[in-house]
Amino acid sequence: MARSRIGIWLIGAKGGVATTAIVGLIALKKGLTDNHGLVSQLPQFADLGLADWKEFVIGGHEIRDTTLYAEANKLVEVSRAIDGRLVEKCKSELKKIDANIKDGTLFNVGKTINGLAHDKLRKKTETPRDAIKRIQRDLRAFVKDNKLTDLVVMNVSSTEPTVDDSTLPQTWDEMNKQLDKPRKCLLPASSLYGIATLELGYTYLNFTPSLGTAPKAICELAEKKKACHMGHDGKTGETLMKSALAPMFAKRNLEVMSWVGHNIFGNMDAQVLDDPDNKKTKATSKDRLLGQIFGYQPETLVTIEKIDSMGDWKTAWDHIHFKGFLGTPMTLQFTWQGCDSLLAAPLVIDLIRFGELAHRHGEVGLLTSFSCFFKSPLGTEENDFGKQFDELEAWADKIREKV
Amino acid sequence: MARSRIGIWLIGAKGGVATTAIVGLIALKKGLTDNHGLVSQLPQFADLGLADWKEFVIGGHEIRDTTLYAEANKLVEVSRAIDGRLVEKCKSELKKIDANIKDGTLFNVGKTINGLAHDKLRKKTETPRDAIKRIQRDLRAFVKDNKLTDLVVMNVSSTEPTVDDSTLPQTWDEMNKQLDKPRKCLLPASSLYGIATLELGYTYLNFTPSLGTAPKAICELAEKKKACHMGHDGKTGETLMKSALAPMFAKRNLEVMSWVGHNIFGNMDAQVLDDPDNKKTKATSKDRLLGQIFGYQPETLVTIEKIDSMGDWKTAWDHIHFKGFLGTPMTLQFTWQGCDSLLAAPLVIDLIRFGELAHRHGEVGLLTSFSCFFKSPLGTEENDFGKQFDELEAWADKIREKV
Amino acid sequence: MARSRIGIWLIGAKGGVATTAIVGLIALKKGLTDNHGLVSQLPQFADLGLADWKEFVIGGHEIRDTTLYAEANKLVEVSRAIDGRLVEKCKSELKKIDANIKDGTLFNVGKTINGLAHDKLRKKTETPRDAIKRIQRDLRAFVKDNKLTDLVVMNVSSTEPTVDDSTLPQTWDEMNKQLDKPRKCLLPASSLYGIATLELGYTYLNFTPSLGTAPKAICELAEKKKACHMGHDGKTGETLMKSALAPMFAKRNLEVMSWVGHNIFGNMDAQVLDDPDNKKTKATSKDRLLGQIFGYQPETLVTIEKIDSMGDWKTAWDHIHFKGFLGTPMTLQFTWQGCDSLLAAPLVIDLIRFGELAHRHGEVGLLTSFSCFFKSPLGTEENDFGKQFDELEAWADKIREKV
Amino acid sequence: MARSRIGIWLIGAKGGVATTAIVGLIALKKGLTDNHGLVSQLPQFADLGLADWKEFVIGGHEIRDTTLYAEANKLVEVSRAIDGRLVEKCKSELKKIDANIKDGTLFNVGKTINGLAHDKLRKKTETPRDAIKRIQRDLRAFVKDNKLTDLVVMNVSSTEPTVDDSTLPQTWDEMNKQLDKPRKCLLPASSLYGIATLELGYTYLNFTPSLGTAPKAICELAEKKKACHMGHDGKTGETLMKSALAPMFAKRNLEVMSWVGHNIFGNMDAQVLDDPDNKKTKATSKDRLLGQIFGYQPETLVTIEKIDSMGDWKTAWDHIHFKGFLGTPMTLQFTWQGCDSLLAAPLVIDLIRFGELAHRHGEVGLLTSFSCFFKSPLGTEENDFGKQFDELEAWADKIREKV
Repeated sequence: MARSRIGIWLIGAKGGVATTAIVGLIALKKGLTDNHGLVSQLPQFADLGLADWKEFVIGGHEIRDTTLYAEANKLVEVSRAIDGRLVEKCKSELKKIDANIKDGTLFNVGKTINGLAHDKLRKKTETPRDAIKRIQRDLRAFVKDNKLTDLVVMNVSSTEPTVDDSTLPQTWDEMNKQLDKPRKCLLPASSLYGIATLELGYTYLNFTPSLGTAPKAICELAEKKKACHMGHDGKTGETLMKSALAPMFAKRNLEVMSWVGHNIFGNMDAQVLDDPDNKKTKATSKDRLLGQIFGYQPETLVTIEKIDSMGDWKTAWDHIHFKGFLGTPMTLQFTWQGCDSLLAAPLVIDLIRFGELAHRHGEVGLLTSFSCFFKSPLGTEENDFGKQFDELEAWADKIREKV
Repeated sequence: MARSRIGIWLIGAKGGVATTAIVGLIALKKGLTDNHGLVSQLPQFADLGLADWKEFVIGGHEIRDTTLYAEANKLVEVSRAIDGRLVEKCKSELKKIDANIKDGTLFNVGKTINGLAHDKLRKKTETPRDAIKRIQRDLRAFVKDNKLTDLVVMNVSSTEPTVDDSTLPQTWDEMNKQLDKPRKCLLPASSLYGIATLELGYTYLNFTPSLGTAPKAICELAEKKKACHMGHDGKTGETLMKSALAPMFAKRNLEVMSWVGHNIFGNMDAQVLDDPDNKKTKATSKDRLLGQIFGYQPETLVTIEKIDSMGDWKTAWDHIHFKGFLGTPMTLQFTWQGCDSLLAAPLVIDLIRFGELAHRHGEVGLLTSFSCFFKSPLGTEENDFGKQFDELEAWADKIREKV
Repeated sequence: MARSRIGIWLIGAKGGVATTAIVGLIALKKGLTDNHGLVSQLPQFADLGLADWKEFVIGGHEIRDTTLYAEANKLVEVSRAIDGRLVEKCKSELKKIDANIKDGTLFNVGKTINGLAHDKLRKKTETPRDAIKRIQRDLRAFVKDNKLTDLVVMNVSSTEPTVDDSTLPQTWDEMNKQLDKPRKCLLPASSLYGIATLELGYTYLNFTPSLGTAPKAICELAEKKKACHMGHDGKTGETLMKSALAPMFAKRNLEVMSWVGHNIFGNMDAQVLDDPDNKKTKATSKDRLLGQIFGYQPETLVTIEKIDSMGDWKTAWDHIHFKGFLGTPMTLQFTWQGCDSLLAAPLVIDLIRFGELAHRHGEVGLLTSFSCFFKSPLGTEENDFGKQFDELEAWADKIREKV
Repeated sequence: MARSRIGIWLIGAKGGVATTAIVGLIALKKGLTDNHGLVSQLPQFADLGLADWKEFVIGGHEIRDTTLYAEANKLVEVSRAIDGRLVEKCKSELKKIDANIKDGTLFNVGKTINGLAHDKLRKKTETPRDAIKRIQRDLRAFVKDNKLTDLVVMNVSSTEPTVDDSTLPQTWDEMNKQLDKPRKCLLPASSLYGIATLELGYTYLNFTPSLGTAPKAICELAEKKKACHMGHDGKTGETLMKSALAPMFAKRNLEVMSWVGHNIFGNMDAQVLDDPDNKKTKATSKDRLLGQIFGYQPETLVTIEKIDSMGDWKTAWDHIHFKGFLGTPMTLQFTWQGCDSLLAAPLVIDLIRFGELAHRHGEVGLLTSFSCFFKSPLGTEENDFGKQFDELEAWADKIREKV
């Protein structure tokens, strides 16, 4: 059987997560690394027909002036996160992929992200619709040049400032009209990429807490175009822990009085989140699940702070104060020391594989079987990690029946 | 409707767990405390017809010379675990229950537990069968004097030395014969209590890692007598955490290289576990689930050490070393600071309520729907806490259908 | 020899620290408690002639409408910090001391502290000089009524908003004139208490980070009146740890890249520090010593957050990221779980005893031998806890020579 | 001025600590690394005339069959402790030093260390005196071949089983006689190296808890030969923390009720300490200082456990349970995550520099000014790290006066 060719288009293509995912995919193709961290490589997903490493072609958008090789070496030298010898073995492939990476858009990304962009891009003026058209030209060219059978667009760019969802047009028609009016349009870049992708019928995945395709009007567009999308905010570390531990307290009827989580890290994401506008988007996403799992709202506190020395090593300290039998207060503390990009990258690859398969099997609109990957899963209220994983397995069972 | 009267018979009736459960039941009857820590009080178990606090009558066996009030005050003063004002309000009830507590048996409990017993009891010589008969006389009198409709025997006594299961008779007939031969019989006290209970058709629950009714021959007896039993080793703290967290690593394909758990505490349980013979029984029970959940055996280390100053506050530090994407090692650490007796006591009450209800609905033999309560659940290999809880809810659904 | 009678006058006399110090002094007088936490009871200070518990008479200023007994019970019930039976034994003495506690001043304390005061006090309008005169009347009456030989005023009230020291008059004459001009005078209450005390020749100690007697002009007043004073900000927990650990890193030439400290607690102090104006005063005080000890400034982050469920239990998590040999990054984390009021109270008693003794021996002005008690010791740059303690011992040696 | 040439002779020359020290010295000579972790590079020791990196010539004894380059790569690949690019730059120097490393002795090292040695060495039979003579031939040849002006022998080999000091001869004459009687002589290899060194008048430093030159009879030999020695057991991580923190509790009159320390790591040292005979030597050394600092003995527990996945990363969790004011129990926990070899290596270099300088200035016998480097400093009872460092600075002041 002729092998299919599937395009992966990364928004924020030279950021830490994208760089790690790209190095990882190259390493997987070459057999240089193992399955660690890849959910889609678990035995229960073995015979679903998920795309093979060799079927992927990589491109993307980026706003900074750098190279994948330089960014990979930051993860080696600054963060001691990746083994430098592995990066050396991927050097020539990284250079080739650089050629597939085009200028992104800075529309409504806020001043901090804007400050990271290269000069020429910062000076560009486009209407939202212009930006969408330019994005679509890039996507079409990528598909054509590489003879792709399908394309998955994955947003792994920096977190944008919060947008108040309620101020947006509720229908696609209204929203579409605003795209020609830069002053009226409140949508951020992540949504423009989403619209560009869905209009072409491709799949859009949002691994960040940015708005992306969450607005009702964009969901309508996806249905109309029979395109798939999902989001948002990849669940990689502290929030993963919350979604595994909070159900334990609930199921033992132990009342959580307060749950405090302090996060420190020092990569570029940290730099962007150091802007209060952008931080708000993230902290909200990290905090919301507890009330949903418990059915009551404990005191919560979530901080995310930039500490340069930490590099990519995101360290979280959580302090959980709960009431035991006879009202006696007890305490659980944990410290999670994980490499941010290395935790995210395999999930990015998993979501691309699962999303592509869902699309291949005719699914349309918001994909809700993949909530276990997200801090704030769109289209579902389930936040118990065990239950979320049950749903993924149930989805796989259904696919398997079809295969 | 005439209210039923259900007997609770506690083995180790004046130990920390029993004392706390008794204080708790009195406080619940009097409306002095809340539902914290009581699984059976969760909404999903609300309309099953579980026995009410007011239906319970308490008695038990003990080997030491002390009073419930004195033991409760240790938890107030030494451990700062219970509020002293609550104990004062339960004082007269505690005294009454003291009168229902009889001398237990020391058969094969090992030298450390033996050393805790009062002199007269230590000097007593009985065959296993004599001990069983004496226990049964106590149980029958308790049932008769209190006009009980059913009786649940719950073992919350100190952990006994390990018994090699493979050396025991495989059938009830053979085992029964050995009960007259003290030298040949390797069964410890926990099993004698179990046999005594099951022969009378009552329910036997084992909250400790001691042998209890685990042997095949005793399971045969339970079936024969249409009695219920379950075990073993209540899952209260560090192991509960393991059964909630290990599935998270498994479901994220993160290879756990090593899982180290150090436990320190200072109550009487700690004193008994300070004897290597007894400690072995416990450490094995705490360690086994990881291999079952992962499907491979990581390096593990579990210590349980007596530190007198800690009293009832069991503190566990766990260090989990796992491999992320591209083989990068990462770390999770947690510190659990819980009150041992206060974590165990509500589960003891839950198990009694669930066990009684199962018996009332005609279940027989090993009850396997309650694995979420146990470190080493008998009759099932499921150790994922989420899945175990699903089974409890499924059982409740079945009961609800009948009601 | 006739015993002397020494007055202790507490500003914030019914706050957590004062209440604990008062309960403690009563318990010490009655022989109900031990020396735990009392530096002045160490053997090296045994024969200096420090005042005995029995010599102390207690009074103070307060702005809230409450009683010492009620406040002590909060520490028993809400925080589980003090044993309730001890408070019961001190009940009658607590009531007597209530009668010695007068209305304080709210001058420039900021809106959050103002919000805690009782209505009548909030409505009072006084010039700073009026307030000082009123305070002095209270102090004189206390001295006279109780036939006191000396008086020590100790500020343990809530942290005030930050005052920019450079905007204040540099001489006592200028400052004195401003005291009649409420609009011009930027001094907060803590400084008015200080001026009131020093003008009378008594000793003023500042256990808080509030301004107090730090301004140059007030130091001039102290010298003029031959009065003693010291400050500021008692070093009780996380900062104590910093001053013990930072020198270790310095002496091992281990470069600290970043030092992050997160503090959570829930008492009234937390409530006041939840106001950013007040928090700034505290965070600055907690953060400054690292640069002084290291000789370079690492990245630092200090948060202090209100979590109601914690009550008086202040929990700090510190993450220290340092560079070892060959530049390899390493990590130290600590979690400090201490009772805020119980850590502060014995130091308050120690400082009163040491301060009174210094005054008795003729010392004048800023006392600088007691830096080991303070986060931001006035009049010295030494922040290495070991060296600070050496200075205390050296002072004791000098006193001993005189005795 | 003609530069002097100083020999460094490492016992255990290809172990983790020695390998790291050697890589470090090469890197320092070449200007490839910074001063991190080197006490002797602190400003207060700047003008003492300490030997320069370029003056050192390196040799040693080893019992295993390996190369320095292979061992350095283990620290790169298995432990991710050293940057691989640094090792590459030191490769040719490492090969040259390999040629200076000779076969050590296995006399009384115990079965676990014996098991690590290469076959030929294991089969060798020598009397203790034969071994000493052979060692001395190696040392003399090294000195002669390299035209050395002085030699410092540093023991960084694996921890030997405990020797009962009281069973050893009390005078050098008696001990010397035993050296010809292999069956009678209880001295381990570390002592034979010590005797060999001191008899030649060179300096012997013991960075391990092994017996070395601690026995009274060997101290006598050192005096007689005007040779210097010191020990023992380098204070690198958890015990360093103890010696910095315990004085803090003492100086605050906070009674430490219990101090629990759990250590996990996975390097070759861990492998040797996994033998209970060898572990005992280490645990005793880690535990003793608390009683000395406090003046009373708290409950203590120290474990050192081998967890292979940790490699050279020694992680310690310490739980300190202390009594605050009014007897309220409080807790401090810390987690120390350090690279064992990287913490030890700079101290090894420091001690060699300080030891050589002391010898150059005519000091003789046990050097006691360097206690800050040792867990169990010989010849002094001071264990407060701050005070120990004061002694080092005082020594430097005396040297400076002479210079």
